[in-house]
Amino acid sequence: MTNSNPKLTEKTITTKPIFSGKVISLQIDTVELPDGSTGMREIIRHPGAVAVLAVKDGRLLLVDQYRQALGRCELEIPAGKLEAGEDPMEAARRELREETGYQCAKITLLHSFYTSPGFADEIIHLYLAEELTAGDMAPDEDEFLEVIEANYEEVQRYIEEGRISDAKTILAAYIWRLQLIGSRETGK
Amino acid sequence: MTNSNPKLTEKTITTKPIFSGKVISLQIDTVELPDGSTGMREIIRHPGAVAVLAVKDGRLLLVDQYRQALGRCELEIPAGKLEAGEDPMEAARRELREETGYQCAKITLLHSFYTSPGFADEIIHLYLAEELTAGDMAPDEDEFLEVIEANYEEVQRYIEEGRISDAKTILAAYIWRLQLIGSRETGK
Repeated sequence: MTNSNPKLTEKTITTKPIFSGKVISLQIDTVELPDGSTGMREIIRHPGAVAVLAVKDGRLLLVDQYRQALGRCELEIPAGKLEAGEDPMEAARRELREETGYQCAKITLLHSFYTSPGFADEIIHLYLAEELTAGDMAPDEDEFLEVIEANYEEVQRYIEEGRISDAKTILAAYIWRLQLIGSRETGK
Repeated sequence: MTNSNPKLTEKTITTKPIFSGKVISLQIDTVELPDGSTGMREIIRHPGAVAVLAVKDGRLLLVDQYRQALGRCELEIPAGKLEAGEDPMEAARRELREETGYQCAKITLLHSFYTSPGFADEIIHLYLAEELTAGDMAPDEDEFLEVIEANYEEVQRYIEEGRISDAKTILAAYIWRLQLIGSRETGK
């Protein structure tokens, strides 16, 4: 997991905390650059998150919700922040259940990826949830959302229209496409 | 591009600026939630960025660089922030040239996506650069990097090892994989 090229490594000289909030915190790090000069890095700390690729009867489970950062609603795969000390796989099961009502009998890690490594340490653990059974939604109290189930063509149209416009959901759509190609090739 | 479900929409009541830096700014928005109650949203503003999927002679162009947010180096596709008023396509050509030395005769937008819509407005415009010719690198003065050219199997290995671990680069690897499947199917 590590990669330390000494010719590129920066050394932290000081860390100045700027803000600590409910979701994120902000600090400014002063660093020594590889040539010995000094640089400043604005860094966001985030608890990490999970996201779930779940397909029920050929339809991707999506959640429509308002995103204040964008000033509009967006369709995304079910996702949410990790709670303190929470196992990511359990968090994925929890978010799927809370946001869509579905429970899954099978869950597999697809990727763990950083969303914005240039300024943030947010990592998203993306899971594939299978063997789904319907149940009741239980969103957080400050979370208002609607579940949309979309077939492959609808997902492609939502991406073209910009209703789906976030990295994790577009990535999930590509993974789904490769699964469909794989099923076609193996005749499943 | 817009999607406004009135049942989900939040209304901004106040915006409190917390920090304005070189790369990002932070504000806290107080919002009226759909049920009339009040919520707080921590929001990062970012100028937006570009990233470039470029394959030369069957090898993906990657940049190894230190990421202070992660405390280690990471291999990513060439990318960088938009400068004020800069056209994203020109920025993509510029970043490719500055970070790898390569110039491209053909460039196509693949996707524009938000990296972390839950708390940030950062958008990345991902381009496909083709018809590449080599030249000299010219990184920014606080940017230290090394160019790595990796074939498809090496890219998959870097993803498994976590040396590639950011959303845009993993997304680019999936798009490349689909291009390779497409070429194979059409016999190109």
